[in-house]
Amino acid sequence: MLETLKQQVLDANLALPRHQLVTFTWGNVSAVDRQRGVMVIKPSGVEYSAMTLEDMVVVELESGAVLEGTKKPSSDTDTHRVLYLEFAEIGGIVHTHSRHATIWAQSGNDIPAWGTTHADYFYGPIPCTRLMTDDEINGRYEWETGRVIVETFRQRGIAPAAVPAVLVNAHGPFAWGKDADNAVHNAVVLEEIAYMGIFSRQLTPQLDNMQQTLLDKHYLRKHGKNAYYGQ
Amino acid sequence: MLETLKQQVLDANLALPRHQLVTFTWGNVSAVDRQRGVMVIKPSGVEYSAMTLEDMVVVELESGAVLEGTKKPSSDTDTHRVLYLEFAEIGGIVHTHSRHATIWAQSGNDIPAWGTTHADYFYGPIPCTRLMTDDEINGRYEWETGRVIVETFRQRGIAPAAVPAVLVNAHGPFAWGKDADNAVHNAVVLEEIAYMGIFSRQLTPQLDNMQQTLLDKHYLRKHGKNAYYGQ
Amino acid sequence: MLETLKQQVLDANLALPRHQLVTFTWGNVSAVDRQRGVMVIKPSGVEYSAMTLEDMVVVELESGAVLEGTKKPSSDTDTHRVLYLEFAEIGGIVHTHSRHATIWAQSGNDIPAWGTTHADYFYGPIPCTRLMTDDEINGRYEWETGRVIVETFRQRGIAPAAVPAVLVNAHGPFAWGKDADNAVHNAVVLEEIAYMGIFSRQLTPQLDNMQQTLLDKHYLRKHGKNAYYGQ
Amino acid sequence: MLETLKQQVLDANLALPRHQLVTFTWGNVSAVDRQRGVMVIKPSGVEYSAMTLEDMVVVELESGAVLEGTKKPSSDTDTHRVLYLEFAEIGGIVHTHSRHATIWAQSGNDIPAWGTTHADYFYGPIPCTRLMTDDEINGRYEWETGRVIVETFRQRGIAPAAVPAVLVNAHGPFAWGKDADNAVHNAVVLEEIAYMGIFSRQLTPQLDNMQQTLLDKHYLRKHGKNAYYGQ
Repeated sequence: MLETLKQQVLDANLALPRHQLVTFTWGNVSAVDRQRGVMVIKPSGVEYSAMTLEDMVVVELESGAVLEGTKKPSSDTDTHRVLYLEFAEIGGIVHTHSRHATIWAQSGNDIPAWGTTHADYFYGPIPCTRLMTDDEINGRYEWETGRVIVETFRQRGIAPAAVPAVLVNAHGPFAWGKDADNAVHNAVVLEEIAYMGIFSRQLTPQLDNMQQTLLDKHYLRKHGKNAYYGQ
Repeated sequence: MLETLKQQVLDANLALPRHQLVTFTWGNVSAVDRQRGVMVIKPSGVEYSAMTLEDMVVVELESGAVLEGTKKPSSDTDTHRVLYLEFAEIGGIVHTHSRHATIWAQSGNDIPAWGTTHADYFYGPIPCTRLMTDDEINGRYEWETGRVIVETFRQRGIAPAAVPAVLVNAHGPFAWGKDADNAVHNAVVLEEIAYMGIFSRQLTPQLDNMQQTLLDKHYLRKHGKNAYYGQ
Repeated sequence: MLETLKQQVLDANLALPRHQLVTFTWGNVSAVDRQRGVMVIKPSGVEYSAMTLEDMVVVELESGAVLEGTKKPSSDTDTHRVLYLEFAEIGGIVHTHSRHATIWAQSGNDIPAWGTTHADYFYGPIPCTRLMTDDEINGRYEWETGRVIVETFRQRGIAPAAVPAVLVNAHGPFAWGKDADNAVHNAVVLEEIAYMGIFSRQLTPQLDNMQQTLLDKHYLRKHGKNAYYGQ
Repeated sequence: MLETLKQQVLDANLALPRHQLVTFTWGNVSAVDRQRGVMVIKPSGVEYSAMTLEDMVVVELESGAVLEGTKKPSSDTDTHRVLYLEFAEIGGIVHTHSRHATIWAQSGNDIPAWGTTHADYFYGPIPCTRLMTDDEINGRYEWETGRVIVETFRQRGIAPAAVPAVLVNAHGPFAWGKDADNAVHNAVVLEEIAYMGIFSRQLTPQLDNMQQTLLDKHYLRKHGKNAYYGQ
């Protein structure tokens, strides 16, 4: 019964090179089955061009145990687990080192909300996490990466469904969505606004955040009960 | 009798991803039939790869009523209506979030006329609109977006046919032309000069506007009664 | 007997979009037959995808008269004529608005010799011309564009064969070579070093010219009687 | 018996244009057979699209003598020889003028370790060599280029296997690896981090090196006896 979910996760992983979000085997997508308490994720270090449905790995959310699959799951599996366990509203997660989102992550800065492209998808700045402590890095590193993401959203009072992406400091972006395909969609938009943000700030170094009214208008014309974009 | 116009609008919309001006379903093109007082526009949120002639929507300019089509028109329809109603000389309009034109729009700056590539198509700087007021944003937002574009051209005394593009502040570009295809052509050139402008200013931060004589020469060798470019 | 030259000019023109040096109908390539005193050049404003051998135009160098062809030659024909008449050692010329070379031209700066990629092809900085006077612009503009290029090389004592490219201020690059194909080759390299130069200067704002010894070494290992690169 | 190695070197050379690391005939890849004391390298100035197995040149490491092949080996052959002779742990070498790595080389700066993309492959900054002396340039130039690379690694105490790339000042990058394919892989990653570094520094001009703990963590999760990335 997880065949559908595996297919969605495979398709979403294969979309990453098509959208030029990944180099080599970098990046990974997962999706969750909340009723079963499991997620399906890409195997570690397998080339996209050779990836098949059978390569997908089923992992129990609570324990991290591999329930199905002959390959090792992505080394970032524990980060995905934390996000599914803590962010109840998300159905799919994608991690990439896409160039411009990674540039913001490496520079340690949030991506401010600077235009309607941003506002159409993200209801506020894309937060960048704090640096991790030596203990966190030397301990359960991938798990702690998830923890610091959750901390960032909790401390700043950001709803994960309203801002479906984060920059992990000195590392790169994670994006999520209602399913694997939607998570990839958000990762593409994130890369787009990350690119535009670099040069918007170059043109106007002290650029203000966009008006809250305009942010509200654009986000809410595409999301929520009064949305009127699309069919 | 609108089949020809629908085909032109469909073709022009499909040209947007080919020219790498749009991501996903972003962007929209329309064209006007002035005798009938109607315009044909892309439907809202439909994928370019699946778009057909039947998806095109016919909208009455004056009232905004949908006269033909089973899909909702682009959410930016009212902006297109204002531009057709106020700019008598234009036949097609395109809106995109193309990367570099959007960067200038987000940064709130006009694109200065800095070279003959610009002068071949635009007879002066590409203006950036003022920020919209809260009332405009919370009111008839898309209509008011059109109004602020018209205000910009009127207050500065710019002829829409001579400068066939605008940057909507914190949003992105609109371009237009004598028909849908020509509007897309101008949108491509706008993106090109937007890219070059960012780095021209990086190399020479206090770069002067180009000489008026050279601007005249290049614009007028391609436009007007003494033009001598092309066959 | 000009069929071979026409084919070379057609092929070289078609190479421009393949190397992503041009948008739409921008750009033009010509080649010269010195014995006959004629050049073959692209017609004005014709799309690359529809261009044929028959579209090529034969122009007399001395008079500018069209000797063969049913189409109008490129509007930049007179610039090409001046360069062939004054630079005896060149066999082909290309003009583009390629993005990064045009950025340097728009910013009014020479491209300094900053690395061996440059030194492999250009024996010194790529000069940027002075601004043209109003009289030059309002007079025989395209002819005067050629004159200001020649003036730049003469006044600075640069050999056109050793530095086979120029930036026309506020306009864009011309490149040349022993034939049409070689001119396109140099235009590609020019674009490459123009790109690298923008960001080399960003990383090291007061970057010195490369060492003369290294410039000599690389230029002379590919050019002249002691060259040892290639087969 | 060198057919396998020749095929690997040919494949690796053909991968360069596919990864957009080279223009025209620029760039070269070699691989070593340590038992025989020979290396296989690309011929000088041959187009990638026409390159065959027979074009590969076998060169004796110690003497530089051509043992097999009808074409002249790459003009950078002596640089490869020095690296194989001095860096016992490497099996393949690649030289390119890839845009962003070359930008760092031209600007004369090391690429700092600024994120986990870097740390996954390079255990510290990518060093940039000192400028070469006139004697070195006018002497056995390509050999001395190798010598200055070796000097850089020795003086700074860097292990070539842990930091498999270098920037030659005012020139461009060399990368290496356990074989030709792995060397190209590292050249691709180098280009990626070179790109990201330029804009990371633009966003945060005084950007600190990444935490040593995080550098250790990422490098060692992919390399060495405790690695756990991949299958």
